[in-house]
Amino acid sequence: MLSRVGDKWSVFVIMMLSDGPKRFNELKRMINGISQRMLTLTLRGLERDGLVTRTIFPTIPPRVDYELTDLGHGLSRPVEALGKWAKEHLDQIEAARTKFDQRNEG
Amino acid sequence: MLSRVGDKWSVFVIMMLSDGPKRFNELKRMINGISQRMLTLTLRGLERDGLVTRTIFPTIPPRVDYELTDLGHGLSRPVEALGKWAKEHLDQIEAARTKFDQRNEG
Repeated sequence: MLSRVGDKWSVFVIMMLSDGPKRFNELKRMINGISQRMLTLTLRGLERDGLVTRTIFPTIPPRVDYELTDLGHGLSRPVEALGKWAKEHLDQIEAARTKFDQRNEG
Repeated sequence: MLSRVGDKWSVFVIMMLSDGPKRFNELKRMINGISQRMLTLTLRGLERDGLVTRTIFPTIPPRVDYELTDLGHGLSRPVEALGKWAKEHLDQIEAARTKFDQRNEG
């Protein structure tokens, strides 16, 4: 469903960051099924849009934190409403799809 | 921006249908820049998800109306909040992109 009304990875990343900064590997662990490459691309896209900042700490090994900007926090509210709706109605959407596909096969 | 957190055509169609049923050509006129084929695909996807119904009236020529289902109306609220946010912050996002692209070129 989110793939229809949202790029689901961006939606997930924004939701995960809404309660504070996270490291790359934390995000990767929290978001089931996202590949290293897809997470990198998603974060880069969000950074480009001014929604996420990337901060490098000069520790050994270097630590990289991703955090929502003020703009990103503003977006997280409608995005969460959308995510919540999608989660609550996923069953109904799946049922509609099954019915539609059956009708268009037979 | 909507292309990041939403398939923009689906978002536009849902917003256009939120105040009542529309015909294919009405939708096409209301949504700037959408092709015949993309509108057909978008409506079919929304129909499959159980968000939109398609009703054919046996007039001459036949009239085809698209309308949000109850499920679709439920979705239109968070989608409109998202669309409103995107519209209000488009300038900020464009500015962030320009800055990001300049930083990554030079």
